Amino acid sequence: MNNRLFSNILSAWKGVSTQFSGKRLELSPYLHADEIEPLRVKISDCLEGKGGEVSARARAAELGTAYLGLNDEGRHKYLKLLITDFDVDHDKVRTTAEALFTDLGNEQRSKVEEKLRQNLTPPYLKLLTQFNALPQGIKFLVDLRSDVMRLSKEHPELKSINELLHTQLCSWFDIGFLELQRIDWNAPASLLEKLIEYEAVHRVKSWVDLHHRLGENRRCFAFFHPRMPNEPLIFVWVALVDKISDNVTALLDTTHQEITNDEPSTAIFYSISSAQKGLAGVSLGNFLIKRVVDELKRECPSLENFATLSPAPGFSKWLTTRAAAPDSELFTDEERKAISQQLVDNTRTVEDLLNNTEWLADENICNAMRKPLQRLLAHYILTEKRSNGTAANSVAHFHLSNGAIFERVNWLADLSNHGQAQSYGMMVNYLYDLDVIDENHEQYIEHGVIAHSKQTQK
Amino acid sequence: MNNRLFSNILSAWKGVSTQFSGKRLELSPYLHADEIEPLRVKISDCLEGKGGEVSARARAAELGTAYLGLNDEGRHKYLKLLITDFDVDHDKVRTTAEALFTDLGNEQRSKVEEKLRQNLTPPYLKLLTQFNALPQGIKFLVDLRSDVMRLSKEHPELKSINELLHTQLCSWFDIGFLELQRIDWNAPASLLEKLIEYEAVHRVKSWVDLHHRLGENRRCFAFFHPRMPNEPLIFVWVALVDKISDNVTALLDTTHQEITNDEPSTAIFYSISSAQKGLAGVSLGNFLIKRVVDELKRECPSLENFATLSPAPGFSKWLTTRAAAPDSELFTDEERKAISQQLVDNTRTVEDLLNNTEWLADENICNAMRKPLQRLLAHYILTEKRSNGTAANSVAHFHLSNGAIFERVNWLADLSNHGQAQSYGMMVNYLYDLDVIDENHEQYIEHGVIAHSKQTQK
Amino acid sequence: MNNRLFSNILSAWKGVSTQFSGKRLELSPYLHADEIEPLRVKISDCLEGKGGEVSARARAAELGTAYLGLNDEGRHKYLKLLITDFDVDHDKVRTTAEALFTDLGNEQRSKVEEKLRQNLTPPYLKLLTQFNALPQGIKFLVDLRSDVMRLSKEHPELKSINELLHTQLCSWFDIGFLELQRIDWNAPASLLEKLIEYEAVHRVKSWVDLHHRLGENRRCFAFFHPRMPNEPLIFVWVALVDKISDNVTALLDTTHQEITNDEPSTAIFYSISSAQKGLAGVSLGNFLIKRVVDELKRECPSLENFATLSPAPGFSKWLTTRAAAPDSELFTDEERKAISQQLVDNTRTVEDLLNNTEWLADENICNAMRKPLQRLLAHYILTEKRSNGTAANSVAHFHLSNGAIFERVNWLADLSNHGQAQSYGMMVNYLYDLDVIDENHEQYIEHGVIAHSKQTQK
Amino acid sequence: MNNRLFSNILSAWKGVSTQFSGKRLELSPYLHADEIEPLRVKISDCLEGKGGEVSARARAAELGTAYLGLNDEGRHKYLKLLITDFDVDHDKVRTTAEALFTDLGNEQRSKVEEKLRQNLTPPYLKLLTQFNALPQGIKFLVDLRSDVMRLSKEHPELKSINELLHTQLCSWFDIGFLELQRIDWNAPASLLEKLIEYEAVHRVKSWVDLHHRLGENRRCFAFFHPRMPNEPLIFVWVALVDKISDNVTALLDTTHQEITNDEPSTAIFYSISSAQKGLAGVSLGNFLIKRVVDELKRECPSLENFATLSPAPGFSKWLTTRAAAPDSELFTDEERKAISQQLVDNTRTVEDLLNNTEWLADENICNAMRKPLQRLLAHYILTEKRSNGTAANSVAHFHLSNGAIFERVNWLADLSNHGQAQSYGMMVNYLYDLDVIDENHEQYIEHGVIAHSKQTQK
Repeated sequence: MNNRLFSNILSAWKGVSTQFSGKRLELSPYLHADEIEPLRVKISDCLEGKGGEVSARARAAELGTAYLGLNDEGRHKYLKLLITDFDVDHDKVRTTAEALFTDLGNEQRSKVEEKLRQNLTPPYLKLLTQFNALPQGIKFLVDLRSDVMRLSKEHPELKSINELLHTQLCSWFDIGFLELQRIDWNAPASLLEKLIEYEAVHRVKSWVDLHHRLGENRRCFAFFHPRMPNEPLIFVWVALVDKISDNVTALLDTTHQEITNDEPSTAIFYSISSAQKGLAGVSLGNFLIKRVVDELKRECPSLENFATLSPAPGFSKWLTTRAAAPDSELFTDEERKAISQQLVDNTRTVEDLLNNTEWLADENICNAMRKPLQRLLAHYILTEKRSNGTAANSVAHFHLSNGAIFERVNWLADLSNHGQAQSYGMMVNYLYDLDVIDENHEQYIEHGVIAHSKQTQK
Repeated sequence: MNNRLFSNILSAWKGVSTQFSGKRLELSPYLHADEIEPLRVKISDCLEGKGGEVSARARAAELGTAYLGLNDEGRHKYLKLLITDFDVDHDKVRTTAEALFTDLGNEQRSKVEEKLRQNLTPPYLKLLTQFNALPQGIKFLVDLRSDVMRLSKEHPELKSINELLHTQLCSWFDIGFLELQRIDWNAPASLLEKLIEYEAVHRVKSWVDLHHRLGENRRCFAFFHPRMPNEPLIFVWVALVDKISDNVTALLDTTHQEITNDEPSTAIFYSISSAQKGLAGVSLGNFLIKRVVDELKRECPSLENFATLSPAPGFSKWLTTRAAAPDSELFTDEERKAISQQLVDNTRTVEDLLNNTEWLADENICNAMRKPLQRLLAHYILTEKRSNGTAANSVAHFHLSNGAIFERVNWLADLSNHGQAQSYGMMVNYLYDLDVIDENHEQYIEHGVIAHSKQTQK
Repeated sequence: MNNRLFSNILSAWKGVSTQFSGKRLELSPYLHADEIEPLRVKISDCLEGKGGEVSARARAAELGTAYLGLNDEGRHKYLKLLITDFDVDHDKVRTTAEALFTDLGNEQRSKVEEKLRQNLTPPYLKLLTQFNALPQGIKFLVDLRSDVMRLSKEHPELKSINELLHTQLCSWFDIGFLELQRIDWNAPASLLEKLIEYEAVHRVKSWVDLHHRLGENRRCFAFFHPRMPNEPLIFVWVALVDKISDNVTALLDTTHQEITNDEPSTAIFYSISSAQKGLAGVSLGNFLIKRVVDELKRECPSLENFATLSPAPGFSKWLTTRAAAPDSELFTDEERKAISQQLVDNTRTVEDLLNNTEWLADENICNAMRKPLQRLLAHYILTEKRSNGTAANSVAHFHLSNGAIFERVNWLADLSNHGQAQSYGMMVNYLYDLDVIDENHEQYIEHGVIAHSKQTQK
Repeated sequence: MNNRLFSNILSAWKGVSTQFSGKRLELSPYLHADEIEPLRVKISDCLEGKGGEVSARARAAELGTAYLGLNDEGRHKYLKLLITDFDVDHDKVRTTAEALFTDLGNEQRSKVEEKLRQNLTPPYLKLLTQFNALPQGIKFLVDLRSDVMRLSKEHPELKSINELLHTQLCSWFDIGFLELQRIDWNAPASLLEKLIEYEAVHRVKSWVDLHHRLGENRRCFAFFHPRMPNEPLIFVWVALVDKISDNVTALLDTTHQEITNDEPSTAIFYSISSAQKGLAGVSLGNFLIKRVVDELKRECPSLENFATLSPAPGFSKWLTTRAAAPDSELFTDEERKAISQQLVDNTRTVEDLLNNTEWLADENICNAMRKPLQRLLAHYILTEKRSNGTAANSVAHFHLSNGAIFERVNWLADLSNHGQAQSYGMMVNYLYDLDVIDENHEQYIEHGVIAHSKQTQK
C-alpha cells in the first residue's frame, strides 16, 4: 500500500473507530511480542460478535486501523496471528468430512456438504471481509492482498490467505459490479494523476503528455468499482487513426500536430495497465477490451479495425539466451553475411550485437538486422510455448486467449530505452476481428493453435 | 418476481443476449420435456466457458432470459435441472476429503482444504452468479432466490440452492457495499411508488398519505445497493416529535396539521419494511436503525430519545389460544368481575370477548379491558420464548437483539383493522438507549434476559 | 404568489437577512401609515449603497422579506411608495433631453443618449433587481410581477412597474438562459406535483392520471431557468402515436391499455401550459414547441408528423352571440331541416340548441349537428380576426404565428365538461410542417393569411 | 478571444447554424468591401424577425459564426457596420423626446418615457443579445466585449457598444445569477488548466505548483455563471494558517512540507484574479471575498482573522519618479547615512539604488533600506490619491472600498522578479474585520478616510 493511500485511509478510519468504540488498540509498528495477546483478544471479541453486529464492525475498524499502523514486520506478525489462531478448525473439518463416507440420503449429504463449506471458511476471512464496511474498506482489502502477495515470497505460510482473498475478490470484483467509464480531460485531476502513477507500459512523462493522450482522437477507458470511485482498476489507451499503427513513438509524440479525422477506420489499443496489484488474477482485461470495442463502435460507426500495438517483453532475453547456446542457428548464413558487412570491427559476431542495442543508431546495420529479427520475433511468439501449450510471451498469451490474431511485427516501433531493451524496439499488432474471436479463443485454449496473418507466417 | 419487474428485466436482457450471441433459446413456459436437453447443453457450454469468458456471459444472458420466460412449473424444472446435473460432484468431494485422513504437513493440508472448497462449490452457482453482469442482473438473482424460497415449500430438493444463494447474497449485500439514503418528497416518483408497494406495516393509502409521511418533521431512510439504484432494500419511517408517541393512528392522520418543531427531542421509528423477499436472512435491519440514529443525531442535535412504535403481531392469536385452554388463568377474578359488569349479555365470558374486537367500540368495556390486556401483552413479550430462549414475538426479538429496551405498551394505538386484529389495537415502544445497547444485546443473546422499563415490569 | 411558495421563500430569506444585517423591518400586513417612513428610509439606504454593495444586498433581503409579509393592501402601498418616491426623476430626464436639440457631434450625442438611458431607469428597478441575489430571488420577482399585474387592474398607476418588469424579465428569461428538460416518472415528486398544479388545458385528476401521461409512448418537456431549478416555466405534453389523434378523451383514458409502438409516426402535442403568471408576455411557447420537435426527431427518427390536438376556447361564446343576432345565417336551410327532424320539442330552434350541450348525448341530433358545427368552427378560425388582422382565437393565433397549418376540426374530441362548454366538444389539429413553417409565419404575420388544409377549406 | 475558445465555439455554432438555416454566410477574414452589403441584409432580416423568432435565432447563429471567422480588421468593420446602420434612430429619439416638453399627465408621461427607453435601445443590441441562445453564446458576448475594448483604443467610435454591452453584462452577470464553487484537486483538469492560464498575480509554474496551491490547508473559490459552466469568472486563493502571513514566497514553496493544522486561526487571501477581460467593470470581487469569508467561517469555525497578502503594483514606479524630482525628500538624513555606509561605491546616492533591485541580495544594504521603504510604501498607500479622493494604488483601492483595513507592510515578502520589480519585494496585508467593514467602506467612499492599523500609522 503506498503511503498516500495509507494516510488517507488511516485518517478516515480513525474517525470511524473512535465514533463506534472507545478505547483504541495502540500498537508499535513492529508489533512487539507482548502486544500479540491483546490483539488476539480484540480479534476474538470481534469474531464472536460481542455487542452485536454493529459493534463488531466498530471493532473491525479498530483492527483495520491497527494493521495500517504496522510496518512490514508487524504486518507479517499480524497476518501470521490470523492463520495461526483464526484459521479453519482442521479437526472439525475432518470430523464433519467423516460423515461423507457413511450411507447418506441426498438431503443428508447436502446438509453435510453445507456444514463442510462453513467449516472450511476460516474465521479470519470473516474478520477481513468486515473491513469492507469502512470508508475505503474495499480498497484496504485489495491493498492487504497486495501485502500478502509481497510478504508470502519470504513467508510462504501466508499463501493460504492469498488464495482465499483471491476467491473473495473475484466475487466482489465480478465484472457484473464494475462500471466502464471513459476518462477524458474533464476528469478530476486527482483521478488523472493516478493514470500517470499506474501506467505500466509507456510511462507518462508530464501533464502535457497526458493531455495529448486524452486528445480529440484519443480515448481512455477504465473499469471502476462503485465503492472505489476514484480508483481505476484497469485502463486502456486507444488512438483512433486511419490505418493500423506501426509506431508508438509517433503516437506519443506531443509535438506532432494531429490531423483530426471525423471518420477514423481503426482503433489502436496501445497500452493496457492493471492498476491494483491486489487484484492480480482477477479477470478484467478481456472484458475491458471487448466492452471498449462495443463502446467505440457505438460512438463511432466508421471504425472497422480494432488492433493493438503491443510490446513484446522478454524477447531480448529469450533471444540472447538462445544466441548464447552453442548450437544456435538463429541466423541464416546469408543474413550473417549481410550483417557482418556492415560491421567495422569484424571480430564481432552477429550474436555479439544482440547484447546491446547501440547498433539501432546505425542505419545500415539496422537495415540488415530488420528482416531476421522480425522473423525471430514472429518465431518466438508462434512457437515458444509454456508447458501447458500456451504462448510463452505473456502479452501474446493475453491477446491470443482473448481470441485476437497475431497480425504483424513492427520494426523501429518503440524507441524508448525500455522498448529497445525488451525487444530491440519492435512491437506487435494483435487484431481483434469480432467475427472469429470465439473460434480463435477455442482453438488457442483447446489446441494451442495461434491465429496469425499470412504476413507473420513468413 | 412481480410482473412489472419481470417485463423490465426481460426487455433489457433481450437486447444483451441478442447483442452477444446469435441463436436464441426459445422455451415454452412449462418447459417441455424435450426442451430440457438443449437447455442442458447450453448450460454446459456456458459453464465450460466456450469462446471465452465474454461469450460465456452472453450465454448466461440467454439462459437468464429463458428462465424469465418460464412459469412456476417451468422454473421448478429449470432449477431441478441445475441441482440434478450441475450440482457438486459428490464423488470428487469424497475422494478429495479422503486425503484429510492421511498424514499431511500444514502446507499440504491447506492445499487439500482449498481443493475441497472448490469441489464443494456447485457449477450451477457459477452459472447463477454470472447473471449479475447483466442489466439488473443482481435484482434478478434476488428475485430468483425468492422463487426458490417459494417453490421449495413444495419441492424441498431446492433447499440447497436457497442455502448457497443465501451465502452468496450475504457476501454481495454486505453492509459495506450498501448506501444509506434519505428519501424525501424530492425523490423520483418511480422510487416513491415502490415505498407504497413495499410498505409492510402500515399500508400507504394514497399519494397524499405518502406526502404526509415525507413531511417536514418526518424522515424516511433506505439502504440501496449500487447496482440496484432505484430499488430500496429495506426502509424505515421516522417521526420527529416531542415525546414518545403512543398512537400510530395520530401519526398517520393526514388531516392533522402538524406543529413544526425546530428542536424535536424524540425520534419515533414507526415502521420498518424489508423490500426484497429474496434477501430474507440477510442482516440489514440492525444496521439500518443504528445508521439512521447516527444520521439523525448529526442532522438534529436536539434529539435525545430514539424509540419505536411497533406492532405486536401474533398477540391476539397467542391470547385466544391460551384463553381456549382449560386451565387458562389469564385474568384475575377482580378483572373478570369488572369486565362482566359492562357486558349486556351476561352469558358471554371474558374469553369470548377475545375472539373479536367489536368491544373496542364500547368505551366502558374498553376501559375495563385496558389494564389486563396491557399486562398480558407485557407478559407475552417478556416471557413467551422460543426453544433457544429468545422472545417468541418476532418484532420484539428483532429490537431486543439490537439491544433495545422493552419500554411501554400503548392502548388504542393502532385502530386500523389490521392493528385491531393482531393485538387489539395495542402497540409497543422499544427504546434505543445507545449507552446500554451493547450490554442489552449481550444479555439478551447470551442469557435471554430482556431489558425492560419499570413500567412494563408491572 | 401562492402560500406554499410564500412561506418557503420567507423562511429562506429570514435566514439571509438576519445573517447580513441586524435589525429587522417589522411591518403590519396592511402597512400602516406610520410604517411608510421607516420603509422609505430603508429603501433609500439600500439604493444609496450604504456600507457597500454586499450590505446593500442584505438590505434588499430585508425589504423583500418585508414585502412578503404584506397582504394585498399592504403590497399595493409598498409598490405605490416605489413609484411615488423612487421613480425616474422626470425633471432630470427633461434636462438631459434638452441637449438632444442642440448641435452635437456623434460622440457627444452618444454620451447624451447614454445618460438619458440611465436617467430613464427608475431607482426602484435597481432595488427590485437586487432581490435576485437572494435564495429563490428570481422566483420572487416573477411572482411580484404577477402581483403587479393583478393589483394594477384596480390601481392603474402600477402599470409602469409592469412594463419595466416585463422588459427586465424578457432579458433574464431569454431563451438562451433556459434549459429544456424532459420530465418523466423518474422526476422528483415535488416537481411532478407542480405539473398537476399548473396544468391549464386538461386537468390532471390524480397521480394515476399523471403516471399515464408519463407512460412509455408519452413525453413531457419543460423549460427551466437555472436559478429556479424545480419550477417549470412552460411545459408541453406529447403522445407518440400512429396517426393524427382526433380525440383527447381517448388519449387521457387511464383504463385504456396502450399498445406500445416502437416506431411511432406522429407526435401529438395535446396540451401546453404556462406555469408562471408573472412571465406573461415573455415569449417561450414557440421555442418550446420547436425545440421539442428537434428533440423528438433526434430520439425517435420514425416520427414524420408533428401536430397539436388543441382546444378552441371561445367558440361557443362566439357562436351563441352570433346566433342571437337577428340576421344570423349560421345554418343552411337544409341543415336546419335535418336538425329539426331530430327534435322532439319542435318549438325549439337550432339556435336554442346552441345554448347548452345536452344534445351531445343524443346520437341523432349529434349526427345532424356535426357537419354544420365543424364548418362553423373552421369558419370561425379562418375568418374571425382581430383589428390587426390576426386570428381572434388565441390558441389558433399562437400556432398560426408559429407557422403551423390549420389542419382539421375533430368532432366529439373532448367530452369533458370544459370541452363541451367551450366548443361543443370539438378540437382542432394544427400541423407543424417544418418545411413551410417560416413561409407560413411570414404570410400570417405580414398578410394575415392562414395556412390551412383542403379539408378545412371546405 | 483566444484561439482555443474560438475554435470550440466555432465548431459548436457551425452545427447550430446548419441545423437551422440552409445557406451559409461565407466571409473573408478581412471582410471585403463587397461582402458588407450581404452582411447588412442578413442582419436586417434577423432583426426584422423574418420567419419568426426561432428562425431569427438561426440567423443570429450564422451572424455570430461569421463574426468568429474574422480577424481584427474584419471585426472592426463588422462592428462599425452595426453602429453605422443599426444604431439608435436619433431622429426618432428626438421626436419622442419632444413630447416631454409638452404638458403631460402622469400616465402619458410614463408612456412617453417608456417609448423613449425603447427608442434608445439600438437594434444592434437586440442582435448581439440573441447570440446568447447559442452554445457558449454568453461566453461569446463576453469575448466580443473584450474585442470591442481592445479595438476601441484605435477606433473610439466603438465605445458606445462597449457602454451598452457593459450595462447588459452587468444585468446578466448580476451576482444573483452566479454560483460560488470551491475548486479542489478533484476538479476537472480542463478547469484547473484555466486557473493556470488566468492566474494574474502569482504565475502558476507547473501542475505540481497547482497541486500545492490546492493542498489540504489551501482553498480556491470561484464564481461561475450557470451558462458558462467550465469558465471561472473570478477566483481567489486562500491559505489557512496560524498567523497573518508576511511572505508569499514561503506560501508558494512547493518543497515546503506544510504542517497541517486542524484549527487554523487565519485565512490569507493571497491572490485574486479576474478571468474574463470582457467582464471588466462588472462588480464581482467584493462579493467573492465576502462570500468566501462566509463559506470559510461555516466550514472552519476556528478562523478568526481574514486578511490578504497583496502586491503593491506601481510603488516602484511612483517612488523612482518621486526620487527623480529635484526636491525629493524621501529619506531622512539619518536614513541616508545608514544606507550610504553600506555602499562600496560611494558615488552612488540612495536615489540611485531605487532604480534597480540588485541591492536586495546584499543583506546589509537590505537592512538599511527596510525601515525607510516600509515607511514610504505606507505613505504611498495612505496619502497618494486620485482626483476623486480614493487611493491611487488599485489593489489598495479595491480592498479599502470593500471596507478592509490597511494592516501591515511586509519586507522581503515576494522575491519573484515581478515582486521585486513592482515594489522592491514588499507586500501588504489588508485585514477584513467584519464588525467594522461597513463603517470603513462608508468612511472611505464618502470621505476618503483610510482605515489603518497603528503599525502602518508609524
